[in-house]
Amino acid sequence: MKNDKNFKNYPKKLKQPKTAKHKINLFGQHAVRTAYLNPKRTFKKFYITEKALEGFHDVMKEAYEAGLERPNPEMVTRPDLDRSLGADTVHQGIAALTNDLPEISAMDLIIRERKNDKSVFVMLDHVTDPHNVGAIMRSGAAFGLAGLIMQTRFAPDIDGALAKVACGAVEYLPVATEINLSRAIETFREHGYTCIALDERGEETIGEAAKGLKKCLLVMGAEGPGLRPSVKESCNKVARLEMLGELPSINVSNAAAVSFYAVTSS
Amino acid sequence: MKNDKNFKNYPKKLKQPKTAKHKINLFGQHAVRTAYLNPKRTFKKFYITEKALEGFHDVMKEAYEAGLERPNPEMVTRPDLDRSLGADTVHQGIAALTNDLPEISAMDLIIRERKNDKSVFVMLDHVTDPHNVGAIMRSGAAFGLAGLIMQTRFAPDIDGALAKVACGAVEYLPVATEINLSRAIETFREHGYTCIALDERGEETIGEAAKGLKKCLLVMGAEGPGLRPSVKESCNKVARLEMLGELPSINVSNAAAVSFYAVTSS
Repeated sequence: MKNDKNFKNYPKKLKQPKTAKHKINLFGQHAVRTAYLNPKRTFKKFYITEKALEGFHDVMKEAYEAGLERPNPEMVTRPDLDRSLGADTVHQGIAALTNDLPEISAMDLIIRERKNDKSVFVMLDHVTDPHNVGAIMRSGAAFGLAGLIMQTRFAPDIDGALAKVACGAVEYLPVATEINLSRAIETFREHGYTCIALDERGEETIGEAAKGLKKCLLVMGAEGPGLRPSVKESCNKVARLEMLGELPSINVSNAAAVSFYAVTSS
Repeated sequence: MKNDKNFKNYPKKLKQPKTAKHKINLFGQHAVRTAYLNPKRTFKKFYITEKALEGFHDVMKEAYEAGLERPNPEMVTRPDLDRSLGADTVHQGIAALTNDLPEISAMDLIIRERKNDKSVFVMLDHVTDPHNVGAIMRSGAAFGLAGLIMQTRFAPDIDGALAKVACGAVEYLPVATEINLSRAIETFREHGYTCIALDERGEETIGEAAKGLKKCLLVMGAEGPGLRPSVKESCNKVARLEMLGELPSINVSNAAAVSFYAVTSS
């Protein structure tokens, strides 16, 4: 038992969780660092390897100076984390169990943005792959979007691999879930938002559709099926990405990044 | 032995390759379909499950009508392919061994584009992750780019998981490898290309830098390290993506898609 030998050097044991998924909800350098500095997060458990701890001292200092209450790290080995999270998980020697971020509604987000001159939101209709949603959240935070709206029943949990791929963006980009997306689109329209459905058969390009818009909701569907007709029909406009190549299809997170750029730079 | 039972129903056996990687270089629906219709591809082996074959008849018909020589498919089960490719591989019941596409140089690509009014290329400096390169090739083909240039020593093989993620784009987007990227950039500049290094510290935005350009080479580095200084200094301009969010970093394939859009739509 090679692992047990290494293990003796460490002061505390990582108790093997019965169901690992309920014991660790965040892992990976960027995901945990950013959560560690988010006052809305409560850290219940915080696991770290000796090597990862070396690079974490600055964050701990910053959290301390900001008056954030954080538990002492429990020292673990990489094999401990591999066992808890699965050997394929890229945990980078750092993992934590925290609270989930507070749930909000689309209306909450609209109210928050009232004072802002320009507000862009994205709504995902049945995009469920955690890697895609994580990458979209990362781009959304980078382009300064005001929030993400998903359907309650089909929204992936905002943690684990999704949070890892999002590289900290889950702390910045608020997420609202809504039972009925068409009704949520109505609410955005009532509050002065232009709702643009992304669809390859759109009449205008996203650049044209977004020109000069201050308040905008981008609505995107999954690769393949695309937007459900009822959701598409609830929008003000249907726009396409202008692509000139022979292979007219890009990954949904790339399409999202392009749309965010087109709308925020217009 | 559940698999062996299923196996009896199939006319031919998939001989277990000694080293699977040398026996199968393409897998996944889009990757194999597109390669099957590419006259530059020779199919040495072609493995398919009964279920996947149902959806492949149209492609076989199209290839036949185009006069392409293709071998009879060897019927296999999903567990056969799982064994050859690894259980984690998303092969979608279809796999093949083909020739590699012909090797070309940056100069070849420049010559090909002489007659075109607008030509955009992308160069990747030490971006080695096959998923990222595959996603970048997919977006590159979608936005009608003229080709991808990578450094010979660090270029991933254009097959397997990369080709799967590229969803057929490896058949459309030519790839050139060069021993020295700075020298390749010189060649592009000598032939009238404006070479734009993407860097977050760029003086102008990619939209400004690309305005009205007809011949353009976009040069991108890996996430984290970014472009090597010698490569960056060889370019005409250094440009940044304009991002307004608090988390100023996006995935390299998303950054590439945004840059392709910015340059091709300018």
